[in-house]
Amino acid sequence: MKISEKARLCALSPMRKFHPYAVAARQAGKEIYHLNIGQPDIETPQALFDAVRNFDQTVLEYAPSPGIPPLIGAIRDYYARIGVAFDDGDILITTGGSEALQILMFCILDEGSEVVIPEPFYPNYNTMIRAAGGVIRPIPTCPEEGYCYATREKLEAAITPNTCAIMVTNPGNPTGVVLTPEQMRLLADVAKEHGLYIIGDEVYREFCYDGDTTPRSMAQFADVAENVVIIDSVSKRFSACGARIGALLSKNRELMANALKFCQARLSVATLDQVASAALYSVGADYFDAVREEYQRRRDTCYRALLKIPGVVCAAPEGAFYMMAKLPVDDTETFQQWLLEKFEDRGETVMFAPGSGFYATPGSGRQEIRIAYVLEQARLERAMELLEPAVAQYRREVLHET
Amino acid sequence: MKISEKARLCALSPMRKFHPYAVAARQAGKEIYHLNIGQPDIETPQALFDAVRNFDQTVLEYAPSPGIPPLIGAIRDYYARIGVAFDDGDILITTGGSEALQILMFCILDEGSEVVIPEPFYPNYNTMIRAAGGVIRPIPTCPEEGYCYATREKLEAAITPNTCAIMVTNPGNPTGVVLTPEQMRLLADVAKEHGLYIIGDEVYREFCYDGDTTPRSMAQFADVAENVVIIDSVSKRFSACGARIGALLSKNRELMANALKFCQARLSVATLDQVASAALYSVGADYFDAVREEYQRRRDTCYRALLKIPGVVCAAPEGAFYMMAKLPVDDTETFQQWLLEKFEDRGETVMFAPGSGFYATPGSGRQEIRIAYVLEQARLERAMELLEPAVAQYRREVLHET
Repeated sequence: MKISEKARLCALSPMRKFHPYAVAARQAGKEIYHLNIGQPDIETPQALFDAVRNFDQTVLEYAPSPGIPPLIGAIRDYYARIGVAFDDGDILITTGGSEALQILMFCILDEGSEVVIPEPFYPNYNTMIRAAGGVIRPIPTCPEEGYCYATREKLEAAITPNTCAIMVTNPGNPTGVVLTPEQMRLLADVAKEHGLYIIGDEVYREFCYDGDTTPRSMAQFADVAENVVIIDSVSKRFSACGARIGALLSKNRELMANALKFCQARLSVATLDQVASAALYSVGADYFDAVREEYQRRRDTCYRALLKIPGVVCAAPEGAFYMMAKLPVDDTETFQQWLLEKFEDRGETVMFAPGSGFYATPGSGRQEIRIAYVLEQARLERAMELLEPAVAQYRREVLHET
Repeated sequence: MKISEKARLCALSPMRKFHPYAVAARQAGKEIYHLNIGQPDIETPQALFDAVRNFDQTVLEYAPSPGIPPLIGAIRDYYARIGVAFDDGDILITTGGSEALQILMFCILDEGSEVVIPEPFYPNYNTMIRAAGGVIRPIPTCPEEGYCYATREKLEAAITPNTCAIMVTNPGNPTGVVLTPEQMRLLADVAKEHGLYIIGDEVYREFCYDGDTTPRSMAQFADVAENVVIIDSVSKRFSACGARIGALLSKNRELMANALKFCQARLSVATLDQVASAALYSVGADYFDAVREEYQRRRDTCYRALLKIPGVVCAAPEGAFYMMAKLPVDDTETFQQWLLEKFEDRGETVMFAPGSGFYATPGSGRQEIRIAYVLEQARLERAMELLEPAVAQYRREVLHET
């Protein structure tokens, strides 16, 4: 029996290959600090669990295919508060931001269609775009330039006659890069001039640090409303990843009418999770302030620790809960395996995500790592404290540097 | 901005066009009996709601991509009870049977790949197969032959060099046809001889009536284990459609390894719904006996009522909670619109699903309707009672027959 070409072109998670080494390390009694996982440890607001416990229907029925009206209304009101006037018909509830992305790709990509995405990028974009027959055209960036991609030259160099869309994660996973309003405007202009969709994956919108923490959206530019598509989710905003509630938002009526076809084909999104997620939108600004403060403290901890390691290249990440850094090692996959197999400090070691999995260009990112700062402060400090002696020891023992 | 060809080739639900007429009928004070919807009215077992209320984690985290071990284990044990020895690694939890179907199609279809499916069939197969670049090659059947499709001649006539799989819904939606063990064996043989996947969408497995009600599965044939893929779901089995919990099952390791790529790309299935669905599998045989008895009574009600209408063609449906019937009218879409706009009996009318939406072959099914018997007994009797005078009046007033 045949396996499709598109399935063959997709890959299992690049982190899987380290799983057996992690299991072996734990079996050998080592404690592992996980900086490799994007699962927040912040408590989910009680409102979600209360809504779940108060659910009193006796038949757990299908929800309407576009989503339940209270959740659509809650999201519409949330956007109104950040200055975006979405109508209910501009919002489709999806099973996580992931399904929003997948449905969007079905709607816009044919065989050979291209999506321009700055690299490093969220690796699952690969599978979602491949599944729809498309390919990623990466915009190369580098740690030395703080992973900057929002220049007209870089954007236009990646556009070809097959380009359908420009897609950005803003605030960025894995880099933590946050676009300035001027850079967002530039993206909108380029998309408009070239007749492209501009896709804003904005699931980390509330997580911006330093000075200006205003939540922004590509949907704030009214003159490109037909071009803009927003991917959203409650997963990170409310630390509710397991609810799998996301949304696809656009004022492009033709696009949304086509997206509805795929929403109808999968019938509906989980009813209880929609009811519970609608309740999440009742939390106040103090919730976001507290969470932002916590992440900013962690961001500072990681960044300061990285700056202390000789040879590390890292620009201050401004948002999300990730950062990328270039280490003075030959290959961070080899280094990760060595950390699990050979290294320990008082019985402890550390895991991060090697950088190459976030790049489409072969050979790129080999010296880089992604750090997710979703450990509480004391554990995060210890995890970062492990990195400096580990790098030094690896350089000495494996690379034979003095 | 471009819309993809595959999106253009997909359709919105054929039922949508009647929505405005139904709204107008209700506004005019008519009561509508809905025989058009596959949403069961049977109460969801309390075990699901108890599990939800007892959930006591403070962070609603991502579940593992393949599913949570207690749910996988519950499904493995359920299959063991019906004589199928699945290992945990043969089971991937999905967001409804819908996602299982979609992931499967990604894994096996390329542009132009064909899936052989008896028509009439579940209309959402169209969108899921189109999304993956494939097309449906229908096996024609007819009400006069009881929608029989499981003959070697019919199956082999539909197979071409582009065929990847044979897919059947068994027990059948929309026809209610249930395959005999001999017919299932024939399907397995043909799939094996031609090197094809045989996909069993078996979400109605427990709903078999008359005599032999043993739950069966294509997975019971060990010699074709590499060919067989099962689509499963808690939606109908436990009247828990809104949980959106399904499963993709196969002993074909290459297929499952590729399916896992897509499972990882969408991260996970809703955590709470998985916990709750695992609890559903604790209900005993008495639950299924009671539900089966209830549906069988309704099936009898509908079938007897149809037989009383002159000119109706309908074979006794043996399973699921659907049946198809051919009516002595010109076009059931026109008839449905007339039922909403012109007909009433004591202020009441009825909705069903016109047949043509279940066929791939243009022009087929125009005289047919699908009835879903998911109304409680008294309302179902009244709904069916409306059909006979409606058909007679339509033939007199619209078709001018005497």
